[in-house]
Amino acid sequence: MKNPLLVPELREYLKSDNKEALALFLDSTHPRVIAEFLSALSPKEAWKILRMGDISLAAEIFTEMEEWFQAEVAETLNRRELAQLVTEMSPDDRVDLLARIPDNKRQRILSALAVAEREDIRKLSAYHEGSAGSVMTSDYATLSPELTAAEAIDKLRREAPDKETIYYTYVVDEERRLIGFASLKDLILAPAHERVEEIMNAGVISVRVTDDQEFAARQIQKYGLIALPVINGGDSLVGIITHDDAIDIITREHTEDLEKFMAIQGSHDATSYLRTPALTHFKNRVLWVVGLAAAGLISGGILQHFEATLSHLMILAIYMPMLADTGGNTGSQSATVVIRALALGEITAKDMLQVLGKELRIALMLAVVLAVVAWIKVQLLSGGSPLPGGFTLPQVGGVIVLALSIQVVTSTLVGALLPLGADRLHLDPAVVASPALTTVVDITGLFIYFTCARVFLGV
Amino acid sequence: MKNPLLVPELREYLKSDNKEALALFLDSTHPRVIAEFLSALSPKEAWKILRMGDISLAAEIFTEMEEWFQAEVAETLNRRELAQLVTEMSPDDRVDLLARIPDNKRQRILSALAVAEREDIRKLSAYHEGSAGSVMTSDYATLSPELTAAEAIDKLRREAPDKETIYYTYVVDEERRLIGFASLKDLILAPAHERVEEIMNAGVISVRVTDDQEFAARQIQKYGLIALPVINGGDSLVGIITHDDAIDIITREHTEDLEKFMAIQGSHDATSYLRTPALTHFKNRVLWVVGLAAAGLISGGILQHFEATLSHLMILAIYMPMLADTGGNTGSQSATVVIRALALGEITAKDMLQVLGKELRIALMLAVVLAVVAWIKVQLLSGGSPLPGGFTLPQVGGVIVLALSIQVVTSTLVGALLPLGADRLHLDPAVVASPALTTVVDITGLFIYFTCARVFLGV
Repeated sequence: MKNPLLVPELREYLKSDNKEALALFLDSTHPRVIAEFLSALSPKEAWKILRMGDISLAAEIFTEMEEWFQAEVAETLNRRELAQLVTEMSPDDRVDLLARIPDNKRQRILSALAVAEREDIRKLSAYHEGSAGSVMTSDYATLSPELTAAEAIDKLRREAPDKETIYYTYVVDEERRLIGFASLKDLILAPAHERVEEIMNAGVISVRVTDDQEFAARQIQKYGLIALPVINGGDSLVGIITHDDAIDIITREHTEDLEKFMAIQGSHDATSYLRTPALTHFKNRVLWVVGLAAAGLISGGILQHFEATLSHLMILAIYMPMLADTGGNTGSQSATVVIRALALGEITAKDMLQVLGKELRIALMLAVVLAVVAWIKVQLLSGGSPLPGGFTLPQVGGVIVLALSIQVVTSTLVGALLPLGADRLHLDPAVVASPALTTVVDITGLFIYFTCARVFLGV
Repeated sequence: MKNPLLVPELREYLKSDNKEALALFLDSTHPRVIAEFLSALSPKEAWKILRMGDISLAAEIFTEMEEWFQAEVAETLNRRELAQLVTEMSPDDRVDLLARIPDNKRQRILSALAVAEREDIRKLSAYHEGSAGSVMTSDYATLSPELTAAEAIDKLRREAPDKETIYYTYVVDEERRLIGFASLKDLILAPAHERVEEIMNAGVISVRVTDDQEFAARQIQKYGLIALPVINGGDSLVGIITHDDAIDIITREHTEDLEKFMAIQGSHDATSYLRTPALTHFKNRVLWVVGLAAAGLISGGILQHFEATLSHLMILAIYMPMLADTGGNTGSQSATVVIRALALGEITAKDMLQVLGKELRIALMLAVVLAVVAWIKVQLLSGGSPLPGGFTLPQVGGVIVLALSIQVVTSTLVGALLPLGADRLHLDPAVVASPALTTVVDITGLFIYFTCARVFLGV
């Protein structure tokens, strides 16, 4: 924030009822910045300031507040005030707000709204969470194909105050079927008498209400759009998704993918780290941690099974953590790269053979380097100590190097294969959590290690 | 792609020199889609089709091509053709293109350009990579404060074909200092005779050329902007960053953060997984893998040091992997959450105490649950086998549970502390790679485990 001194100043203005100073503040500051300042006040104080401006500005500032503060402010308003505020909010934002309000309170607000708004809210909230329909807004401008450019601009001028964007307009026929789109730039550049159907671009990019919201956001990114039209099963235009919502969707999906990949559950709808109770954080983490701890006992079982081998040749224990760690690391690396490439659409499950071929080559290169490093290490570290059972250092070193190489290749391929498999099963590739992968290759690694020792050294 | 049949069709049109069909294709298809189709052809064929439309459309389609194909097409053009194409490209895109072309070739292209373009390119390419200056474009519309709304719209209409966006315009004084901004919506809604200085919003949000590009992208996200003005040290407007570039920046930064966090080096400037040679993938991964394998030997050293303890009480080995894995998992979870919260600006290094307090509470809850689970497991798994040295199962189980609890608390706090520390040192928090963290807590975990055994059991 540019001026942290402003908060006590605001309180001062409120106390002395300095309406002029507060009006100037509301008028000259970005709604988002005002929202930030207000959240340092009490909800009652915030509402007192909000009421000084007109209701549409109040709604804009209210929309920019963080969810927890929105809830607190909403709590202090009576039913009529809240209904007014909700009426002025943009359709997608008010649906989000209402979805977070307790059932009985929501019913009371809804009944205080005009029929048109209630109907609009009912329609928008009917879409499945995570779908394009659930993030679209109904504040878009449409044009008929037979309008002239001048008439179209006139229409937009009249409607502009109520629309989320007038920079992209959508051309629809009598049944509201989407037949084209025209940017305000196209309309301004066209001769005044030219018809919209001649100006418009018929190759309009759209998504369906049932499409995934991330797919919609990626279309906005791919084509560099300000807004993307959303159509229903009958090809009728029902909403738009705007560029700013696309960035928020992509950011939220990033967080969810990352957390899923790091074995953390839960959704992250704009709740911030510090505001989330420790108990919720705990719940998001505990299942995986306990599950993987239980799975870790399989590694323990393998160690117990090979107890005789280990106590016979204690030198094997020294290189055991290196083997397990390296498997986890190489597997996580290939999983990371493959999951990200899938998320960005660089590869699909169909490229499986090509991806595995590439990962195999990478794994072989890594294995060669690691084998050389491990061989040198064995010579340096264990060169002095005598080995039991008449084994020579090259014998033992050879087994360690061999097991390490097999481990690197196996875990790299497993790391690439699991997300590809998840994608083919239409699961999110990020379900292949890195800690789970590490635990799996720990188990395979120990098994490879002791099996090599048993086979080649006979211990 | 909607119609994979189109590629052979395009070839057919080319062969039969069907100019009409090709012109229709260029006219009715989105440039991005055309670029995708063309990349299935040879660079020579692609250029043949591009030449059929006018040069500005060709430049637009060329801009939408993937980097590798851009390079191939550029390769087939002569110096004059390439100079024409570069002149028509938008300023930020052509600087990116030239930066990827070999030095001597770039000099030849530059010398074929007009002085104004050359100067523009020189200015734009002077900015440090990763800065706001390096991603901005110089195609923006400015207005003088004394123009009327009608004059302003007229000016925008004349300039529109050459500007990246006319929806946001920037008001500058005689020294090009940024004094306000007006959206096209504001101008259209204002009375025709009103002056720009009255219409404009003086509280314009801007960044400096030297600011980080991710900061700029986050400002665009925060305020839901279509474009963000960039000013130099003298407060003069020198460029804008557009909403579509912001999404690309955020996506790229996320990939880099994720890969850094998973111990993968290298930059990811729009090179895709399959196009990157295996050798490059190998190089990006090998350093960390070898480094961590070497660090894994420290764990080995600890095992060797406690060899007597281990061979005396082999039951400890069974629970060793569980202890190491759990530490890695809980540490990675807290690191993930803290790194993401830092990246999204939810917390800063100043919140360290609050974050540690919260993580401590989460860790204690996790420790209690894990302790109970581990205690039950010990009873179930090891209940039957007799213990050497006269130890009782409750004694050994108690040590395992205690060590596990200490390990969970330590690694959760270390996982949160390291990214916070990196942030305080002005390093990217994601440098705290999860595999490195896992290796570190493996080491501390083994040390905790065997020290507990030695202290409480005397082995």
